[in-house]
Amino acid sequence: MHISELDTPAIVIDLDIMERNLCRMADYTAQHRLRLRPHSKTHKIPALGAQQLALGAVGLSVAKVSEAEVMLEAGVQELLIAYPVIGALKLARMVEVARKTQLTISVDSLESAQGIAAAAFKAGVDIGILVEMDVGLHRVGVTPGKAAVGLAQDVSKLKGIHLEGFAFYPGHIKDWTADGPQKMAALSEAIEETLHQLTAAGLEARIVSGGSTPTEWHAHEVKGMNEVRPGTYIFNDRNVVLSGACSWEDCAATILTTVVSTSVDDQFVIDGGSKTFSSDKSAEPGCGIVTQAKDALFDRMNEEHGVVVLKGARDRFKVGDRVNVLPNHICVAMNLHEQVYGIRGETVESIWPVAGRGKLQ
Amino acid sequence: MHISELDTPAIVIDLDIMERNLCRMADYTAQHRLRLRPHSKTHKIPALGAQQLALGAVGLSVAKVSEAEVMLEAGVQELLIAYPVIGALKLARMVEVARKTQLTISVDSLESAQGIAAAAFKAGVDIGILVEMDVGLHRVGVTPGKAAVGLAQDVSKLKGIHLEGFAFYPGHIKDWTADGPQKMAALSEAIEETLHQLTAAGLEARIVSGGSTPTEWHAHEVKGMNEVRPGTYIFNDRNVVLSGACSWEDCAATILTTVVSTSVDDQFVIDGGSKTFSSDKSAEPGCGIVTQAKDALFDRMNEEHGVVVLKGARDRFKVGDRVNVLPNHICVAMNLHEQVYGIRGETVESIWPVAGRGKLQ
Repeated sequence: MHISELDTPAIVIDLDIMERNLCRMADYTAQHRLRLRPHSKTHKIPALGAQQLALGAVGLSVAKVSEAEVMLEAGVQELLIAYPVIGALKLARMVEVARKTQLTISVDSLESAQGIAAAAFKAGVDIGILVEMDVGLHRVGVTPGKAAVGLAQDVSKLKGIHLEGFAFYPGHIKDWTADGPQKMAALSEAIEETLHQLTAAGLEARIVSGGSTPTEWHAHEVKGMNEVRPGTYIFNDRNVVLSGACSWEDCAATILTTVVSTSVDDQFVIDGGSKTFSSDKSAEPGCGIVTQAKDALFDRMNEEHGVVVLKGARDRFKVGDRVNVLPNHICVAMNLHEQVYGIRGETVESIWPVAGRGKLQ
Repeated sequence: MHISELDTPAIVIDLDIMERNLCRMADYTAQHRLRLRPHSKTHKIPALGAQQLALGAVGLSVAKVSEAEVMLEAGVQELLIAYPVIGALKLARMVEVARKTQLTISVDSLESAQGIAAAAFKAGVDIGILVEMDVGLHRVGVTPGKAAVGLAQDVSKLKGIHLEGFAFYPGHIKDWTADGPQKMAALSEAIEETLHQLTAAGLEARIVSGGSTPTEWHAHEVKGMNEVRPGTYIFNDRNVVLSGACSWEDCAATILTTVVSTSVDDQFVIDGGSKTFSSDKSAEPGCGIVTQAKDALFDRMNEEHGVVVLKGARDRFKVGDRVNVLPNHICVAMNLHEQVYGIRGETVESIWPVAGRGKLQ
């Protein structure tokens, strides 16, 4: 199928770029002997998870039990739910996942660990636990050092689960080129100290799992960390470019749209808005970049309308024209589409249902 | 089923409030002899569209052809696609919809009208056209007066379609209590003048379709307008309250979530973020209102985390507790959920798949 046969709006993925992105991360992590457990939240597609595994990823990461169920299809050996599993309904589904793969869960409270342990023990499965630490984002996680080691000790005493190590997400480092190195050095020190304390308590961390997109090529600088969970690297997006972690040429996914109106002067309207792109913002103005009009400002959106401001727009675009938009944040855009298209040049090579979209529980 | 048996996050709809909202709008439009053609984008559920029709709505509105296909299930007699239909793929689906219901489409360009006309004529169907006018939002639409009447004349000459009248969306009126009355008066004058000019041109507007949520109880003040297309009124949300069009007690839909972390001081984290609520903002700070802690600030979100800032949070909430969140914008939240739950008191009375979610084309 030719791309002109696709209806719009549609996410199109340049497979050459995507494959280059996948190989680059596989090479980087292999070179530095880092375990690679990509977060599948970016693509939400088992076939792409399988590609990551084929390139050497040790497993996959997900946020929810319902996403774990979807990613089992990728044939994953080690699955991490990087989110506390709370409540009887999720725990019941969790143990079924644990029967099919080596399951690890990150937790930041004893309540959560106890719930997982009780359900696992009763079902006769064993689940690995990573103690989640707050290294600066102040979202979830216990404080590194004494509090983290204390929770690790508590976890190690519970039946049904076993301590695998630590997890953290350095989301407080937004821009590597700004204060990345300093924050990373402080983080590295906190991790090292925590690992010393853990050893002193007679325990061991097989896995120390961290990483984030802005820091993705500096993961090897954190002492003691041996696993990364990057997500966005498979496609990249405007926010990743602005964080300094990739260039515009590394962005694999754009959203193909149609110009539906030029009736208001100095703007054109495309058939995608917040329902197509999400309303996630960026560090710079605009809702995304129109690749055929980089001088234009994708100024505002409603659910179904994207308003692109461009002097003399009517001279350059007419109703029915198609333009590609590089979104601010590709992960949340993927969640809005029933299926996406892998293209090679102008040929549609793959049609993938987004099996993991809308998996909230 | 009891609500405690629902997994989270989940949209729960208080049916008593919803039914009161539906009746209030039905009464208002009946009293003022306004045609009511609710926009189904808020609920995206054919069964709720059918309830609106049963209460006297003349038809339903949608934004896309794919949504029209879904809403045919509601048994709708008059369906409006309030969005220009552009491109061969959509036109082919459009004529199939037109075989099953009386279809009207709003357009703001001759190119769009010609495409619809050609496809309709070839298929042997007849489609009504509303000429879309820009009354101040500057998104889509031709200027009222000469330009609007000119497009209406062009439309009236094309085979396969017939002129039904005008449509507009006064989205520039954000807050009725601020400058609503003045802007509405100017709008009313522009519509009246356009209708005079249309009559002078020997044409007639059977339908003049407008309205928006902040102006929803003032629609009868616009001279010549005889149809409204409200959407959000069925549930209402924080933004509608802040626009002045309803009170907190009129909000029918909240999102049930679970507290998953209290590990960082003076905050708790719920198991819903931008993937659950959308990242749509509000006129006031915060990502929504926690109904069990109205003094708290729902400060920030990532895809799966909602961070609620509250002094001494750990004393009031513990991991596993459930809280309801009134979202900023319910329409975009509905689009993120596979199914939603209608509740009466603490009993789950209905489970509705959100059949129209993710219909982008």
